[in-house]
Amino acid sequence: MTALAAYLDRQRAHVDAALAAAFPVDPDHPHRLLEAVRYSLLDGGKRLRPILTIAACEAVGGTLEAALPAACAVEMIHAYSLIHDDLPAMDDDALRRGRPTTHVAFDEGLAILAGDALLTEAFAVLTRQAAAAARPRRLVQVAVEIAEAAGARGMVGGQAADLAATGTTADLPTVEFIHVRKTGALLRASVRSGALLGGASRSQLQRLTRYAECLGLAYQIADDILDAEGARTATGKVERRDQTLHKATFPSVLGLPAAKARVRELHDEALAALQRFPARAIPLRDIVGFVVSRATD
Amino acid sequence: MTALAAYLDRQRAHVDAALAAAFPVDPDHPHRLLEAVRYSLLDGGKRLRPILTIAACEAVGGTLEAALPAACAVEMIHAYSLIHDDLPAMDDDALRRGRPTTHVAFDEGLAILAGDALLTEAFAVLTRQAAAAARPRRLVQVAVEIAEAAGARGMVGGQAADLAATGTTADLPTVEFIHVRKTGALLRASVRSGALLGGASRSQLQRLTRYAECLGLAYQIADDILDAEGARTATGKVERRDQTLHKATFPSVLGLPAAKARVRELHDEALAALQRFPARAIPLRDIVGFVVSRATD
Repeated sequence: MTALAAYLDRQRAHVDAALAAAFPVDPDHPHRLLEAVRYSLLDGGKRLRPILTIAACEAVGGTLEAALPAACAVEMIHAYSLIHDDLPAMDDDALRRGRPTTHVAFDEGLAILAGDALLTEAFAVLTRQAAAAARPRRLVQVAVEIAEAAGARGMVGGQAADLAATGTTADLPTVEFIHVRKTGALLRASVRSGALLGGASRSQLQRLTRYAECLGLAYQIADDILDAEGARTATGKVERRDQTLHKATFPSVLGLPAAKARVRELHDEALAALQRFPARAIPLRDIVGFVVSRATD
Repeated sequence: MTALAAYLDRQRAHVDAALAAAFPVDPDHPHRLLEAVRYSLLDGGKRLRPILTIAACEAVGGTLEAALPAACAVEMIHAYSLIHDDLPAMDDDALRRGRPTTHVAFDEGLAILAGDALLTEAFAVLTRQAAAAARPRRLVQVAVEIAEAAGARGMVGGQAADLAATGTTADLPTVEFIHVRKTGALLRASVRSGALLGGASRSQLQRLTRYAECLGLAYQIADDILDAEGARTATGKVERRDQTLHKATFPSVLGLPAAKARVRELHDEALAALQRFPARAIPLRDIVGFVVSRATD
């Protein structure tokens, strides 16, 4: 096992345990809603966003414990966005990671509510943590970061733009507009939240933000490349789904070779942003390497 | 015009202006999403929840300005819940307040996203306000109140229980379970938020909480009574919708006379909770009178 794989496994276990504890099975609680939430949230995902929060916190000298509430919040928001994006009125996906999507396993009404619950509980986790803190200021700033990244000018806005562009011939600015918001904003907030909670200096925060922006865009282009190459069977997602839906993607606009070159550029730029960080930032370096290797190997 | 009507008009104008300012028309912003948000939010609603926040704040000596961000947040959360509740997978309502519901006026995908955006922006408003405050502690506590009231143990949990009970013969504890969560929790949080932001003492907060709990239940039973009596044409909602859907309601479980008696009891209990408050609490008194008069006149 590589050092990165061991690191990812270790952090994923922390995140999984914290998420399961946030939604304990409870006989007084509306049963099917909790089941739908747990089904969607505790499904063996990669946990990329919360691991980035933890890794960014550790990169500036912070602890796992300081990062964990924000890490859980970003993963809850990610999980809610997947449930709602999969709905028949949106991307209409029946499978995710090889399992029926939430509205298929339960029903549409419950899937909408499970998403609503996860989004709301993300802010409950963050604000409860802030209320308990001796100095709430950083946690409040983190909650603002996450709310803005998830909201109308961030993730939700990106999904709306994506729906509007589906079936049209999108140009490069449109594709970038969509992805910066739809996936980029929350990845950026995941890294920045960890950095803020770890006590990053202004310059460290700036460099980690640049890292996150490059990583986010590289991640999305890599995802598009894998989709275009039909290599996603291992992920359990229906192959070439984006092409079938005529979704706006980087390979469809740039062509595959240029898309791969762009991923490599973004990789180098992300590493450059980490240059003056100490050894504690190695997981962040390794993560960007891992993200791009999936698409450029 | 009665003193209450003038008070409600004045506060509604403040709330409407603040909500419109929170979602300004913006050429850089995904156009249809913003349209759907504004359509749903700026539709001439009664603004009961935000007015309760302001009135509770003023009742303990606080200002309109202190209450306004929380007032906007509770109304955004109320607006999101209406959009999602009206969806075909939930209550499948085509009309609200005499206008097409959001998924009819736009489409289902956009309606889901407009709800998601409103929920997220509610927390953006609250946490931004806390980040700007010299002493964020009260605003953070308010954000916790609102998140918990809206979440899986509050509003979303109530809606899930309501969906589960639809078509079954519900008993009184089930009907109360649903309504305490589905409508009661956010009304309670609206009052408590105003009280907290106005600097309520522990005893004032306790009494205003009792007031809010009685008001919330009275409001819901009154709503059920109006529905059962088919008197809702003026509200633009399809008449006797709840009966058609076999929804769990108080009149269907208690019978109409006992339901009306319960509303009057709750009215008296709400007024008793306000007894030791000064004249500043008159709007709160008048509001509970207004709420019950709709159903018991």
